[in-house]
Amino acid sequence: MIATLNHQALLQVAIDEAMLGLSEGGVPVGGALFAADGSLLGRGHNRRVQEGDPSIHGETDAFRKAGRQRSYRDKIMVTTLAPCWFCSGLIRQFNIGTVIVGESVNFPGGIDWLRENGVTVIDMASKECIDMMSDYIINNPAVWNEDIGEE
Amino acid sequence: MIATLNHQALLQVAIDEAMLGLSEGGVPVGGALFAADGSLLGRGHNRRVQEGDPSIHGETDAFRKAGRQRSYRDKIMVTTLAPCWFCSGLIRQFNIGTVIVGESVNFPGGIDWLRENGVTVIDMASKECIDMMSDYIINNPAVWNEDIGEE
Repeated sequence: MIATLNHQALLQVAIDEAMLGLSEGGVPVGGALFAADGSLLGRGHNRRVQEGDPSIHGETDAFRKAGRQRSYRDKIMVTTLAPCWFCSGLIRQFNIGTVIVGESVNFPGGIDWLRENGVTVIDMASKECIDMMSDYIINNPAVWNEDIGEE
Repeated sequence: MIATLNHQALLQVAIDEAMLGLSEGGVPVGGALFAADGSLLGRGHNRRVQEGDPSIHGETDAFRKAGRQRSYRDKIMVTTLAPCWFCSGLIRQFNIGTVIVGESVNFPGGIDWLRENGVTVIDMASKECIDMMSDYIINNPAVWNEDIGEE
């Protein structure tokens, strides 16, 4: 069923979240968790800056908003940027079956590791996502480095 | 400096958090983040049951409570139970230098992977932690399996 979904439409939800974060002065990474039939379970965005909370990445926020789920194997995590180790670990621990990433150019994250561990990773190579993130990194290098634990 | 700290005293903070969680009806895993001099930065515990929030593990809660930090390399994450992939990913992404785990008998988590990636992992093999967790798993298998993404 996942193969028949409109991946770009799912990604758009995450992009809208990222842009909301940007408008709030935050790191523009958005995420959304969907059921296998494409229904939305949770959506969210990075709020390191807005709430001073380093644990809120786009993926962790979407996962949290979706609440408790009995199984994640048929779920789809969508994120504007390849997931960092924290979020890749989330995906692996809870056996989220499919991940759609907007791009992995600005940050490769753990997508190779996820693939090695049986996760289906679909990289959309979205120019919109690449440009949004590269613009942010160029203009806010300190916040970005803090967000990925670089000193 | 970390070598001279009383590891058992640091672990006790995480145990106290785990027991608080247990008294609330939750999964008894606690965590605490310390600076290199042993001062407490944040402490917390699993609240999957209490708040219906699957993203709150002992480690993520302690990390969150500590707020934004410029560097984690000299920080110490203490947890009553070996960190799952989600929490191991957190530790790796933010380059937390040292992890003290109460035990890894009931759940090995990602401690070998963390060691391979340069994290100092100190396993206390605490009988108190082992008994607390095994009692919980025996009495609450469904919640425990949900917490680690097992179906």
